[in-house]
Amino acid sequence: MKVEIITIGDEILIGQIVDTNSAWMAVELNKAGFEIEQISSVHDREDHIVQALDLALSRADIVLFTGGIGPTKDDITKYTLCRYFDAALVFNQEVLTHIENLLRHRQKAINELTRTQAMVPDKATLISNKVGTAPVTWFEKDGKVVVSMPGVPYEMKEAMSTEIIPRLQQRYSTPDVIHRTILVRGLPESALAIRIADWENNLPEIIKLAYLPNFNLVKLRLSTVTNDRQSTQKELDFRIAKLREILGEAILAEEDVPAEKLVVEWMSRLQLSLSTAESCTGGFIAHRITSVPGSSTMYKGSVVAYDNTVKQYQLKVDEQLLKDHGAVSNEVASAMARGVRELLSTDFAIATTGIAGPDGGTVDKPVGTVWIALASAKGVVSKQYRFQLGRQLNIERTTQTAFLLLLDKLRGIPDEDLI
Amino acid sequence: MKVEIITIGDEILIGQIVDTNSAWMAVELNKAGFEIEQISSVHDREDHIVQALDLALSRADIVLFTGGIGPTKDDITKYTLCRYFDAALVFNQEVLTHIENLLRHRQKAINELTRTQAMVPDKATLISNKVGTAPVTWFEKDGKVVVSMPGVPYEMKEAMSTEIIPRLQQRYSTPDVIHRTILVRGLPESALAIRIADWENNLPEIIKLAYLPNFNLVKLRLSTVTNDRQSTQKELDFRIAKLREILGEAILAEEDVPAEKLVVEWMSRLQLSLSTAESCTGGFIAHRITSVPGSSTMYKGSVVAYDNTVKQYQLKVDEQLLKDHGAVSNEVASAMARGVRELLSTDFAIATTGIAGPDGGTVDKPVGTVWIALASAKGVVSKQYRFQLGRQLNIERTTQTAFLLLLDKLRGIPDEDLI
Repeated sequence: MKVEIITIGDEILIGQIVDTNSAWMAVELNKAGFEIEQISSVHDREDHIVQALDLALSRADIVLFTGGIGPTKDDITKYTLCRYFDAALVFNQEVLTHIENLLRHRQKAINELTRTQAMVPDKATLISNKVGTAPVTWFEKDGKVVVSMPGVPYEMKEAMSTEIIPRLQQRYSTPDVIHRTILVRGLPESALAIRIADWENNLPEIIKLAYLPNFNLVKLRLSTVTNDRQSTQKELDFRIAKLREILGEAILAEEDVPAEKLVVEWMSRLQLSLSTAESCTGGFIAHRITSVPGSSTMYKGSVVAYDNTVKQYQLKVDEQLLKDHGAVSNEVASAMARGVRELLSTDFAIATTGIAGPDGGTVDKPVGTVWIALASAKGVVSKQYRFQLGRQLNIERTTQTAFLLLLDKLRGIPDEDLI
Repeated sequence: MKVEIITIGDEILIGQIVDTNSAWMAVELNKAGFEIEQISSVHDREDHIVQALDLALSRADIVLFTGGIGPTKDDITKYTLCRYFDAALVFNQEVLTHIENLLRHRQKAINELTRTQAMVPDKATLISNKVGTAPVTWFEKDGKVVVSMPGVPYEMKEAMSTEIIPRLQQRYSTPDVIHRTILVRGLPESALAIRIADWENNLPEIIKLAYLPNFNLVKLRLSTVTNDRQSTQKELDFRIAKLREILGEAILAEEDVPAEKLVVEWMSRLQLSLSTAESCTGGFIAHRITSVPGSSTMYKGSVVAYDNTVKQYQLKVDEQLLKDHGAVSNEVASAMARGVRELLSTDFAIATTGIAGPDGGTVDKPVGTVWIALASAKGVVSKQYRFQLGRQLNIERTTQTAFLLLLDKLRGIPDEDLI
């Protein structure tokens, strides 16, 4: 069953806000067995909204509008849909009572503008917006459904989860949509494509394959739409088993999760602790790890040694090492990893030192030169990388690479094979 | 001049990635005097891409494609555009050489798939993708422009800023778009709107005002589209001078910069140094500061004290304090700030401790309870906040608030007025 999302509002088209609603809606609709055909962002302009709706209805069975239903002058979605469906606006006491209660809770007085939200299209099924003042309206025409809901993310999410998706599932019998994601490590997209060419060419029609490169990782996504979940699951299992034979160790995980989540999960499971010493990444590694709920079970902390004195006095990096080899070197990276591992007494430690840019590069150490060291009870491994990207991306790429190094180490991949 | 953006890729339509490209493109195009008419996200499917392109060309003068130009099978944009513009694919040595150099830098070998990216449409103007392997192609038809670029954000941004926007400005004469942004601190959006109501009502037609609330800051953006830059600048200066009289101290800055950039600039100018001790923010403060080029002049480092033992042994927080008041308390926050300031011997120090969530809350310390402490030679100020948002937002809001506290302190605002 095909769905289109139309987001209404100039703020999206001038880039004032990023449309995060559509991705969230796509994921939830997908889980419920609906396919998104297109997402369109249009202006608060009647002709534009109508054209978008006509086109969406020509491609899909269900059209979901977000935005443009506030009480202010610039919001015209309600009036446009009334004209489109030849409906009249009528006063609804229930809606007004809901608005009054809601505002009372927020200790706000109702005003003329807010009151107009109790005027609703007579041809629409009303769906209460439990957390906002603008009601959700559900229109039907020629067996197709058009829903208009608020653009405020938490209002949209509440209406989608508790009302709209359940009603759509009741209204239509939907096929199962199954996605499986394989995280592949250590192969550039094109090399991977060549390695699995035969496997890919032999995939049955029903399985769609997508490559999503993400730094040193490629996400392989297998998608199917099916009415026979069981046999499709079997088919997917069979294909993925074959993929395992081909890729072996290159498969890092068989779920779509960020590397830091794997770090937290694997180390917690193995009851191993981690600390970090960050120079060029400046706390980003610590941030990524601590953004995973539950990371406190395995992560002790970080010394962000941005200044060399911190490397010396906190991480006990020998001043001579800094003089002889410079802060961006194998020796200093290794000493930092050893230093923080002892300081915070953890099983593993990661250290980074490099030149994030835009300045500070030299001929033999250009911007993007980074050393990443990994310390454990067994000793230290340290590797050099050259990320010639912008400052922010050099930081992100270093962080991602550090996680992958650690995960490889945890998987028992020999030091010389770490990439 | 009207522009449409078409993002190609199933990953957007299943919600696997959020389309952040379009908002960035909209902002940059807007600055350059172009208006976005519509943003559409479509499948990697020829009929769908062609329909979207036809419709976009019927509404706009310029169509910008992102995505679907990788070397793998699922990427079909290049072939679709060739058929659409009746172009043939021809081998291009320059592109191949560029790809080879790029891969050499990345210490990767070229393979036949990557080599196919040197096959380019004969009817397109080629724009080199300096940071990626897929070339950017520029087609023209009936006075309209169609550009296809990568979906990888940093490749898209590089191509847009250095090539595509400058070429579009050369190709079309666009009016001047002037944006001025004022950062207002300490006033909620509605209170600010009331405070400046008269000023706002007296703004001339040509100046459009937008309120962009961002945590404890409101960005006031004044925008004008003009063909007389000089007199418009004068008008803007005049209006902003009036605004200064009304808002006084509430104006934090008169440029659109993140708070951390102000922290780095002001402290560097005052030759003051900063260190941080982070528990609930887990390194995010350090990350935001070190993401500002030049931060090494004023920022020494951070102790991410995620585990209490780190608070005790590194930051010298008295074990008794932790026992008596708990890690999330005025006393511990203050001790952390004092501790890191001494440890890294800096002029100022920021410390954070709190419950980011989703778990760990109690009745008197619910999720979102945060203490932020600020230490200087004069002593320590510590304040409690309750951010009842998700984990990530609690972390971001704590970080933003810490920067604003520090900036207020640097502006000489008395402790009791810090908010």
